[in-house]
Amino acid sequence: MRHVFQCTLRWSDMDAFGHVNNVVFVRYLEEARIDLMFRLAEEAAAGSSSPGGSFRGGSVVARHEIDYRRPLVYRHTPVTIETWVTKVNAASATLDYEIKDTEEVYARARTVIVPYDLERARPRRLTDEEKSFLEGYFDDSAAPGLR
Amino acid sequence: MRHVFQCTLRWSDMDAFGHVNNVVFVRYLEEARIDLMFRLAEEAAAGSSSPGGSFRGGSVVARHEIDYRRPLVYRHTPVTIETWVTKVNAASATLDYEIKDTEEVYARARTVIVPYDLERARPRRLTDEEKSFLEGYFDDSAAPGLR
Amino acid sequence: MRHVFQCTLRWSDMDAFGHVNNVVFVRYLEEARIDLMFRLAEEAAAGSSSPGGSFRGGSVVARHEIDYRRPLVYRHTPVTIETWVTKVNAASATLDYEIKDTEEVYARARTVIVPYDLERARPRRLTDEEKSFLEGYFDDSAAPGLR
Amino acid sequence: MRHVFQCTLRWSDMDAFGHVNNVVFVRYLEEARIDLMFRLAEEAAAGSSSPGGSFRGGSVVARHEIDYRRPLVYRHTPVTIETWVTKVNAASATLDYEIKDTEEVYARARTVIVPYDLERARPRRLTDEEKSFLEGYFDDSAAPGLR
Repeated sequence: MRHVFQCTLRWSDMDAFGHVNNVVFVRYLEEARIDLMFRLAEEAAAGSSSPGGSFRGGSVVARHEIDYRRPLVYRHTPVTIETWVTKVNAASATLDYEIKDTEEVYARARTVIVPYDLERARPRRLTDEEKSFLEGYFDDSAAPGLR
Repeated sequence: MRHVFQCTLRWSDMDAFGHVNNVVFVRYLEEARIDLMFRLAEEAAAGSSSPGGSFRGGSVVARHEIDYRRPLVYRHTPVTIETWVTKVNAASATLDYEIKDTEEVYARARTVIVPYDLERARPRRLTDEEKSFLEGYFDDSAAPGLR
Repeated sequence: MRHVFQCTLRWSDMDAFGHVNNVVFVRYLEEARIDLMFRLAEEAAAGSSSPGGSFRGGSVVARHEIDYRRPLVYRHTPVTIETWVTKVNAASATLDYEIKDTEEVYARARTVIVPYDLERARPRRLTDEEKSFLEGYFDDSAAPGLR
Repeated sequence: MRHVFQCTLRWSDMDAFGHVNNVVFVRYLEEARIDLMFRLAEEAAAGSSSPGGSFRGGSVVARHEIDYRRPLVYRHTPVTIETWVTKVNAASATLDYEIKDTEEVYARARTVIVPYDLERARPRRLTDEEKSFLEGYFDDSAAPGLR
């Protein structure tokens, strides 16, 4: 199952060249990830008999990789961000994404996230609940063009 | 020769976790790149007998890759961004970066840029002046940890 | 008639204090204004027999005034921005706003906009079509608390 | 005494019209205010025999007012932000600003700040140390054009 997020553009996402700036695409990835890892993971945790299923306690980005395919210009209709999980390790997970609409793919990307203990300021292992939540979005077809 | 850019942090670069947000690191790369490709390339072009040495006419980011090494917190003193050129092709160039200070490396990154004809809305080849400018920053020691 | 805009929050709109940052509220006003002055004014212009009804040719902000009423925290549901016109002059117009949801008012604000000729880089007068468009959103009840 | 802050522009501060966006001016004010109220107030507090002189425990913006005078375009050299205190009340203070360089004034602005107890989530009174710190920047000549 892929997570589907409708991402609203802001006029200010465009830069002086009149395109959505490349950095803002990475912001869009964050919005999709927050929806998946905070909102949905918390809902899943709330419905489960054991705690520990939410990433809100902390997670950090260890790595991003993003391929830009086409310029994107501000418009009223959102872009769709599909997110899916391509790897789950003991202390990290990999997410792939496509930013697109019904016509075009604007970018493909990959993020490695590491669960993080904010209080102790150090990485931690994924809990069983977090693993199980992520596995619900597992799909081993990597986004094409990424390494 | 590496390009050295002192990047000023803003308090608002921090997110709700109290760290400089991962997306903002990609913004810092842009600031270093703009300083190299707009300011310095234009100065070089202005001092040359032939035009065509500046990227301001347009260039787009085709790809980013970034490895986060350590959390960064807002402070008054800038971080240093070292940028150097690791590949020059007919119609693209690759830049590697380190975001650091005298103590730590916070992130290493790589960007593929493509010169772009904004009027015709399509990629173009590097001019000889642009190639020669970029070669002045060539250093084949890739940032460690990038693929 | 008031213009009603549903403004989507982004997680990154929060600052290190965990609230939507005060500057981001001013960004929200821009999004509402762009929806009114670009999207709706253009639709109105497209349906009229005479041109000149759109502000996209250029307009600048001459003044903002904003009163913050309550802290706002990131959430999945949008906030509502109501915008209405409180003054139309020959070469400027005043917009009032409320940022709110069904429970609370988070901020009230006022913006003076000046139509601007981007090519000549100078202010211009409102066209008759622009005036008539703005008058459709006229409501002389100023947002309370503003001067 | 006025607080003088050199504010570095970022290329991305410009919007699709090629000017520093009006919202970003309000961000610049924040940077100047953070430098005054966090960095300098803390230094002053550290050198005093009694605690309580720093706003970092929390302060919120109650109101902004900003008049835009001239368009600003990205450049390598910073703009200067002069900040001074025009009013100190029991539980609020008013700051006036000018954003300028040696040639031009780009904007004048005013902010009412309210010290805030983040833990209890409510406004608080200014401490004596905070008042005395602010009075060091008192200047009753209000920025011209503000109400």
